[in-house]
Amino acid sequence: MSGIKKTEISTIGEFGLIERITKDTVLKNKSTIKGIGDDAAVLSHPDKNIVVTTDLLIEGVHFNLMYVPLKHLGYKAVIVNLSDVYAMNAKPKQIVVSIAVSGRFPLEAIDELYEGIHLACEKYDVDLVGGDTTSSFTGLIISITAIGEVEKGKQVYRNTANENDLICVSGDLGAAYAGLQLLEREKEVFKSNPEINPDLTGYEYILERQLKPEARRDIVEFFEKSGIHPSSMIDVSDGLSSEILHICKQSNKGCILYEEHISIDEQTKKFATEINIDPSVFALNGGEDYELLFTIAQPDYEKIKSNPEISVIGHITKPEEKKLLVTRDGNFVELKALGWNAHLENK
Amino acid sequence: MSGIKKTEISTIGEFGLIERITKDTVLKNKSTIKGIGDDAAVLSHPDKNIVVTTDLLIEGVHFNLMYVPLKHLGYKAVIVNLSDVYAMNAKPKQIVVSIAVSGRFPLEAIDELYEGIHLACEKYDVDLVGGDTTSSFTGLIISITAIGEVEKGKQVYRNTANENDLICVSGDLGAAYAGLQLLEREKEVFKSNPEINPDLTGYEYILERQLKPEARRDIVEFFEKSGIHPSSMIDVSDGLSSEILHICKQSNKGCILYEEHISIDEQTKKFATEINIDPSVFALNGGEDYELLFTIAQPDYEKIKSNPEISVIGHITKPEEKKLLVTRDGNFVELKALGWNAHLENK
Repeated sequence: MSGIKKTEISTIGEFGLIERITKDTVLKNKSTIKGIGDDAAVLSHPDKNIVVTTDLLIEGVHFNLMYVPLKHLGYKAVIVNLSDVYAMNAKPKQIVVSIAVSGRFPLEAIDELYEGIHLACEKYDVDLVGGDTTSSFTGLIISITAIGEVEKGKQVYRNTANENDLICVSGDLGAAYAGLQLLEREKEVFKSNPEINPDLTGYEYILERQLKPEARRDIVEFFEKSGIHPSSMIDVSDGLSSEILHICKQSNKGCILYEEHISIDEQTKKFATEINIDPSVFALNGGEDYELLFTIAQPDYEKIKSNPEISVIGHITKPEEKKLLVTRDGNFVELKALGWNAHLENK
Repeated sequence: MSGIKKTEISTIGEFGLIERITKDTVLKNKSTIKGIGDDAAVLSHPDKNIVVTTDLLIEGVHFNLMYVPLKHLGYKAVIVNLSDVYAMNAKPKQIVVSIAVSGRFPLEAIDELYEGIHLACEKYDVDLVGGDTTSSFTGLIISITAIGEVEKGKQVYRNTANENDLICVSGDLGAAYAGLQLLEREKEVFKSNPEINPDLTGYEYILERQLKPEARRDIVEFFEKSGIHPSSMIDVSDGLSSEILHICKQSNKGCILYEEHISIDEQTKKFATEINIDPSVFALNGGEDYELLFTIAQPDYEKIKSNPEISVIGHITKPEEKKLLVTRDGNFVELKALGWNAHLENK
């Protein structure tokens, strides 16, 4: 935030702040009847089901302002919620955003944060329709609730995977976690010697995946166009391992995943190798990928096989079966949430 | 929290915590298709408009755990949001609740908080359908989003008051603020001498209004039964003065309020007198009343006059007119948000 103008929030007061951060708000969805400015927003989603999801982000717990630009933070805070909406096979339409800031936050910093929020709204055709602003004694707090719509009966849950269904995942995994590790490493370098400029060349992709992730709107639109109804779906926020275990537990099923089919980007592999970690650990236990993990009935394979953004990584098994990973070298390893590290240690 | 068992949250982990705080959740509304347990909740409000409102509550800013029991805090955090829904002439149906807690918070404290949340849900027939739980480095943070429904076209805004409309308010005003002042006073007494037990006898009503307020569901139901459509409405969270100014500004109108018609409870008057403050200051600038302030067309007076819970306190005037209060002694005073104190000082 160095170099930018610093105006104290107190100079414009709460109502002034609300006016400032909402003045760029453009309402685009016809389902938004009334946006910011009353006790509540008014929406209309006739003939559709509505999905609602919420996330609470705390400075120091979920983000570190030392290396996360505020504009990216605002963008990411929205994306995290939109990803949950897509994971229901729904389309996000509105968000409400609450923030708490301490006095050390200049107005210009809040402007940056909202630039990112508005940018995400614009890109994903979502309306910002309300929120709350308050003061905080400590750091920045962001709470976002997203509202989406889905045709009645088209919503996809976690607990409806069937035996023999194919397990699929969009994009590649582990990159966001690799990006975080890279940022943490450079932070330590900077701390020990502020003269050294971090060299992040060649790692643009993993940094972008960490700092400015996207939600998989394209996958949900592809399902619609291709007439695919996944049997279950979840977004990958805590790592593939944790997410597939959610699907298995809630669907009361087992699974087999194949390590060799898990898509990992070259930069992720390169960085993992550099710090002597198996890249699959990033993919299985990293998190913040915001990819979609879903299951489909086998006959639907024909419909997805030509989409390069989707990998088939395994299949669902009987309830009494374990949750297994077949490693590259042909071993069977039991999947555990954050438990695969243990396997590595035993190797 | 003294005397109760203290179990660290870390003993059960995040998923254990989610299970614990959601196990008592009973879904009652047929509009709730899917509650807690997936990426998002799924709702259905066919043929209705939906209203959405959100509030962020921070320890030390919005509440003080030194004198607010956690169960009451949970209850009140819900009520604050329901009040906003009623202020749209809508009925709350679902809430999502996010909390951030620090390690010093034992599980039993979280249980107490959720007892209050569940109690409010039960009393107001609202379903708890989702949320987020996370850790905080400092105090307790509560973020609630409430979703309600209203028949299409029946929602009531702030910006639609008409000239000559009657200004009405439910219940009595200033009591919650009086209760807060009483608690603050007793806190200071306790700090200076922990041996002294606070004597709150005779002030039960103002304490309850501060610690366990209710939202005016009855008023919205009365409107429906009586065929009343207020021309504008807002809930009284920041004091009567601030709220009527919102209606006037957004409706582009003036107003006249009559001090003598503002209903103030005897305990509020008694406490105000005890600390040498004009009770009307509590009513005009206090806040947290969660009463409904609304305007009606004059012909509707016949429909409301027999309801003892509604006072007519003034009327809406032309756009070029000021926003005035006629005091008991017949003076005209300009209303300002938090500005009436100035009048008192000039007296």
